Amino acid sequence: MKKIRLGMIGGGKGAFIGVAHRIAAHMDDMYQLVGGVLDVDYKRGLAFAKEIELDTSRVYATVEDFVKKENALPENERIEAVSICTPNFLHYTMAKKLIQGGFHVICEKPMTTDSKQALELEGLVKKHKVIFCLTHNYTGYPMVREMRKLIEQGKIGKIQRVHGQYYQGWINPIIHDPKKRKQIWRLDPKVAGISCCMGDIGVHTFNLLEYITQMEVTSVLADLNTLYVDNPLDVDGTVLLRLGKGVKGVLAATQIATGEENSIQIKVYGSKGGFRWDQENPTYLYFLQEGKSAQVLKPGNPYNTKFSLASTRIVSGHPEAFFEAFGNLYRGAAKAIRGKKIDAGEFPTVHDGLRGITFIESVVKSNKTGNKWVTL
Amino acid sequence: MKKIRLGMIGGGKGAFIGVAHRIAAHMDDMYQLVGGVLDVDYKRGLAFAKEIELDTSRVYATVEDFVKKENALPENERIEAVSICTPNFLHYTMAKKLIQGGFHVICEKPMTTDSKQALELEGLVKKHKVIFCLTHNYTGYPMVREMRKLIEQGKIGKIQRVHGQYYQGWINPIIHDPKKRKQIWRLDPKVAGISCCMGDIGVHTFNLLEYITQMEVTSVLADLNTLYVDNPLDVDGTVLLRLGKGVKGVLAATQIATGEENSIQIKVYGSKGGFRWDQENPTYLYFLQEGKSAQVLKPGNPYNTKFSLASTRIVSGHPEAFFEAFGNLYRGAAKAIRGKKIDAGEFPTVHDGLRGITFIESVVKSNKTGNKWVTL
Amino acid sequence: MKKIRLGMIGGGKGAFIGVAHRIAAHMDDMYQLVGGVLDVDYKRGLAFAKEIELDTSRVYATVEDFVKKENALPENERIEAVSICTPNFLHYTMAKKLIQGGFHVICEKPMTTDSKQALELEGLVKKHKVIFCLTHNYTGYPMVREMRKLIEQGKIGKIQRVHGQYYQGWINPIIHDPKKRKQIWRLDPKVAGISCCMGDIGVHTFNLLEYITQMEVTSVLADLNTLYVDNPLDVDGTVLLRLGKGVKGVLAATQIATGEENSIQIKVYGSKGGFRWDQENPTYLYFLQEGKSAQVLKPGNPYNTKFSLASTRIVSGHPEAFFEAFGNLYRGAAKAIRGKKIDAGEFPTVHDGLRGITFIESVVKSNKTGNKWVTL
Amino acid sequence: MKKIRLGMIGGGKGAFIGVAHRIAAHMDDMYQLVGGVLDVDYKRGLAFAKEIELDTSRVYATVEDFVKKENALPENERIEAVSICTPNFLHYTMAKKLIQGGFHVICEKPMTTDSKQALELEGLVKKHKVIFCLTHNYTGYPMVREMRKLIEQGKIGKIQRVHGQYYQGWINPIIHDPKKRKQIWRLDPKVAGISCCMGDIGVHTFNLLEYITQMEVTSVLADLNTLYVDNPLDVDGTVLLRLGKGVKGVLAATQIATGEENSIQIKVYGSKGGFRWDQENPTYLYFLQEGKSAQVLKPGNPYNTKFSLASTRIVSGHPEAFFEAFGNLYRGAAKAIRGKKIDAGEFPTVHDGLRGITFIESVVKSNKTGNKWVTL
Repeated sequence: MKKIRLGMIGGGKGAFIGVAHRIAAHMDDMYQLVGGVLDVDYKRGLAFAKEIELDTSRVYATVEDFVKKENALPENERIEAVSICTPNFLHYTMAKKLIQGGFHVICEKPMTTDSKQALELEGLVKKHKVIFCLTHNYTGYPMVREMRKLIEQGKIGKIQRVHGQYYQGWINPIIHDPKKRKQIWRLDPKVAGISCCMGDIGVHTFNLLEYITQMEVTSVLADLNTLYVDNPLDVDGTVLLRLGKGVKGVLAATQIATGEENSIQIKVYGSKGGFRWDQENPTYLYFLQEGKSAQVLKPGNPYNTKFSLASTRIVSGHPEAFFEAFGNLYRGAAKAIRGKKIDAGEFPTVHDGLRGITFIESVVKSNKTGNKWVTL
Repeated sequence: MKKIRLGMIGGGKGAFIGVAHRIAAHMDDMYQLVGGVLDVDYKRGLAFAKEIELDTSRVYATVEDFVKKENALPENERIEAVSICTPNFLHYTMAKKLIQGGFHVICEKPMTTDSKQALELEGLVKKHKVIFCLTHNYTGYPMVREMRKLIEQGKIGKIQRVHGQYYQGWINPIIHDPKKRKQIWRLDPKVAGISCCMGDIGVHTFNLLEYITQMEVTSVLADLNTLYVDNPLDVDGTVLLRLGKGVKGVLAATQIATGEENSIQIKVYGSKGGFRWDQENPTYLYFLQEGKSAQVLKPGNPYNTKFSLASTRIVSGHPEAFFEAFGNLYRGAAKAIRGKKIDAGEFPTVHDGLRGITFIESVVKSNKTGNKWVTL
Repeated sequence: MKKIRLGMIGGGKGAFIGVAHRIAAHMDDMYQLVGGVLDVDYKRGLAFAKEIELDTSRVYATVEDFVKKENALPENERIEAVSICTPNFLHYTMAKKLIQGGFHVICEKPMTTDSKQALELEGLVKKHKVIFCLTHNYTGYPMVREMRKLIEQGKIGKIQRVHGQYYQGWINPIIHDPKKRKQIWRLDPKVAGISCCMGDIGVHTFNLLEYITQMEVTSVLADLNTLYVDNPLDVDGTVLLRLGKGVKGVLAATQIATGEENSIQIKVYGSKGGFRWDQENPTYLYFLQEGKSAQVLKPGNPYNTKFSLASTRIVSGHPEAFFEAFGNLYRGAAKAIRGKKIDAGEFPTVHDGLRGITFIESVVKSNKTGNKWVTL
Repeated sequence: MKKIRLGMIGGGKGAFIGVAHRIAAHMDDMYQLVGGVLDVDYKRGLAFAKEIELDTSRVYATVEDFVKKENALPENERIEAVSICTPNFLHYTMAKKLIQGGFHVICEKPMTTDSKQALELEGLVKKHKVIFCLTHNYTGYPMVREMRKLIEQGKIGKIQRVHGQYYQGWINPIIHDPKKRKQIWRLDPKVAGISCCMGDIGVHTFNLLEYITQMEVTSVLADLNTLYVDNPLDVDGTVLLRLGKGVKGVLAATQIATGEENSIQIKVYGSKGGFRWDQENPTYLYFLQEGKSAQVLKPGNPYNTKFSLASTRIVSGHPEAFFEAFGNLYRGAAKAIRGKKIDAGEFPTVHDGLRGITFIESVVKSNKTGNKWVTL
């Protein structure tokens, strides 16, 4: 497969997320980074391009410039796909222009700041027939994919209880300091939008639950916590979930679980069995079955589903982790861009982005209106 | 300390819970089982008494008989304390008669079937000056006690998030069978009362959260699941919690987590740190602190609090478990009965019983009234 | 089953091991402690007897007195079995007199201080037809028994590698202090015998490996470590093992694994699968199989072997631990004393005691003679 | 830092190890793969070069050709460093020619097939002043580096016990099949050399122990197992270790631990504390201290040493694993090649290669000569 010529918006010098995208893109020899709008400051972008040895003629000052000049290049030189790694509030604008310019898009989450924009992007992706990959990267873990497939195969029967937890503690030292909590952009509604905790991490959990079960959450009831009266955004919350077909569950997310790092835990139970998975120990998937002993599924083994096996790069016992999961999304997108047959679970799409924004809006609405049920 | 002469109501031949009570009572050489009303069938009770070599003259047909005849004995022969191990719906009646008869009571949970009865018992205990121990046995684990004390000492600062999970799967094979689910007493409101899952296990989690934090849950909002329309009682549910001083949290309990055995997991976070504890691995307590590495606290070590140390019987590394935790409640009750100074956390009291019943009633009410907040 | 009248030699006031024996003996309502020689100081023994409410007429000053006076009592009053909880060097003397006096014996390890004595006891047990139970208590864990039975059933095929680890750190603060290491009895050959680490804990590991595999270690090669030149006894060591039928393995034991508590880890591999077990987490048994996912076996489940199931007292998910394992040995011995049919694995016998002493002697000999192989 | 122009010998189409090297090399934007001798079959090498879009003019048929033609290019175009990913027996020949040609070398282990060759390479590296990195990749894990640094800082005091385990089960289905075990190259001394298990995995454990402790193993005594008489090479073994300053320990490695994947476990104990680390769970490092609770150190945290922190790429809680550890070696080598200051632990050198080969030879010698001590 010919390498895809990749552009990048944002993700320049010092941007952690840019590092993740570049590692993921290069991992399987499927992309070649060519240029982009690497920094809001053009000069800094140029300097960074030199540092990582890109052709500086392919570094642009604005996305408009990018679209115009790249489209002026011959098709076999032109950048084909673009990673959007800008601050959150720019995702929508950038994505819109790139889709309209005919570029495939690999976009950081959150996709947009409201569901109207998300719907618009969904329409544009269909219209312009581009591939749109939203980097809900946790769906790239082999054992998450194993769960999805085993549930699809009916291994745990009909789902009857879902449980998603995303516990972090990073905001704890900030939230208790009256100055710091007023300065951080994550807690500034003008920049961060309507939610902090649910918008940043709750939505990942939501996405994982829908991804794994292939069911849709139909309604939510949320109780959020801002911890301080002068803090406008949630840093903690619990969401009651109802899924299609009468299934219930819970989604708990917090950034004030002091001492926790990135504790995503998924538990799903059906009429025949259940699963437990923990992001900080991603190579272990616990498979429970009625009346039997629990099994510990690990990646890269002959007993794995084809889909999870194809999401590993090495023999069993050699753990792969966060970057490799991220790389799996890039790999899936590359295959789609090159017109290869892909599994529906290879990467989250613009529709997943719409679902996520709808979740965030619904949760915030439920919390504001006295913890009422809100239909998604 | 002179051994306490113990009686037992129920807990006879084949009763698992009677085994637990006898093991717990004998563990520390603080009780001697003397007699009681061992079985609803007097002859079977007599036969069991012979089997375990009790003096059959101390085996009675009814609790009334027990109270009358024991009180006719000289004080230094008379049974002093009584364990109530009958079916749940009899706890209240038995406890009432025994308290009024002047006996100390060690009572299985649930204490009563409604909060009115619980209030009445609370009044009677005060009036008759007896010791009343409710066997919320999970509070007997050394590492649960360690959490309580370290939180009391301010080690994790001001509490800001609580999380309690109690996941079992035992009802799964029953609930999916239309016949079985109509026959089991746990799902028959006439016998089991207003709740199955919350009444049986949710309440343990509630008790643990209040025990550990020494805070009171002030209001609850619950969404329960009966799974089938023809099943009248909850087998699954999630409860949003609000505690004094603006703290929020979640309590999730289910009996349809297929393949789970007795998965109680407690997570509590404060402004300085947090704790994680898991009943199926009870000797490990994870202590998290802002900016520091997590610590794994284990029982029987010099770094433990005095209270948890006094709740172990052996050097560190030799795990103690369920029965020993149960035994710690019996030990605390014995000390109280003999007038020794005790720690407030040594055993749950009649007030904890009242709290538990109030929780169950509130949760059921919230669920019935469209998932509204109910104040406890 | 009529309770067995139990005597105790040693194990009085302040003796931890006496506590363990009493808890274990009382756990299943199968024994009644009647009397014994509770302390080397008769008056202290009497005081302790009063404290735990024994009939002081059954407390004796010497074992000779015990044997004589108990044998003078009518058979249906006489103590039937005796627990030996004295310091190690007295085990042999006490056991010999009791066996010759016709009493069943439950003896702490090490059984004797040399193999000659052990052989003598083995002969006496046969001659006097008494039951002799050696409290290698780790064999009482349900999941250890599960391993033994599953190996017996061929579940992991022919054994090809065994691995036993017993890591403690308790001697570390003593060994580095020149005064302390000269004062502790464990490092005084006159009291402790020829070995410290291997004699105290290595032998447990040896016993577990033979118990689980039902194979005999045929030869050993050991390298022991005293850490300091002025310390005469081993505090650390590794033993190469050869078992019948060409199987090899390793046994590592140390008391200078600073920070370790009581870390016994067993790993056994055969031609079809393997097992991993850890004493500090005794309810989890990892069952590995060629080409399949690992299974986590836990006690009290329908999938367990009958033998391990019969070694639990409670429903699955409620952990049992050290004392319950200890109690399983007492239960087995009680059944044997009452002439019930027992499984060969219910308790270690005088022969296991002989095997253990032979192991210790062989290991010390190998180490002294330049790390040569020594045949057991 | 300017990207290093990288060549590759071997590692072409279908070679797993080539994938690992390319991922590792590209991870930090420090290398650009330019060409090499990608396959023993030149045409296949060319085809693969096209597939991954290399300039085919830089693909050569032989290493001699490579050296000659690359050296004919201007210095600023010439390949600077070369990864050797050929079958094991070619490592030495390739490395020798490349070093003599003035190229930096990144070489797969084992470095050579005997210690004479290893000594020769060590001399050549010094003479030609090239950087030589041996990919003992497990030293790249952040928590392995944390251990090394904390031991260097004296955090566990003077080392007193080391323990290394490397348990795999992959050879099990082969070794029991008389045909398969005669066909596999790993068990053919002509190709694999003098050892299978110790040469392949035992040596990794040896390297880790020396790396972490910064001590040298001074002598070994080994008992190896071929399992079948007609199998000439070890598939299992245990090695008694003595290290400088009287420290003892054990190294156990096996390929017949049926069901195990890649279970490397390191335990090191000193006079003040100890460490436990497990490769299959590489983000958790257990730090034990006398009289204190165990700590769980995880990467990417402010409490980490600078060296381990610099070996991560992402915020804590997002696990990095095998490829990232591998990438850390490439990163260290790149820094050395560009003349940056590096930590001595950034990558294993030609001297580590010599140590490893010496270990293998010593272990095999000890086993052959009746399990005698052999000085390294």
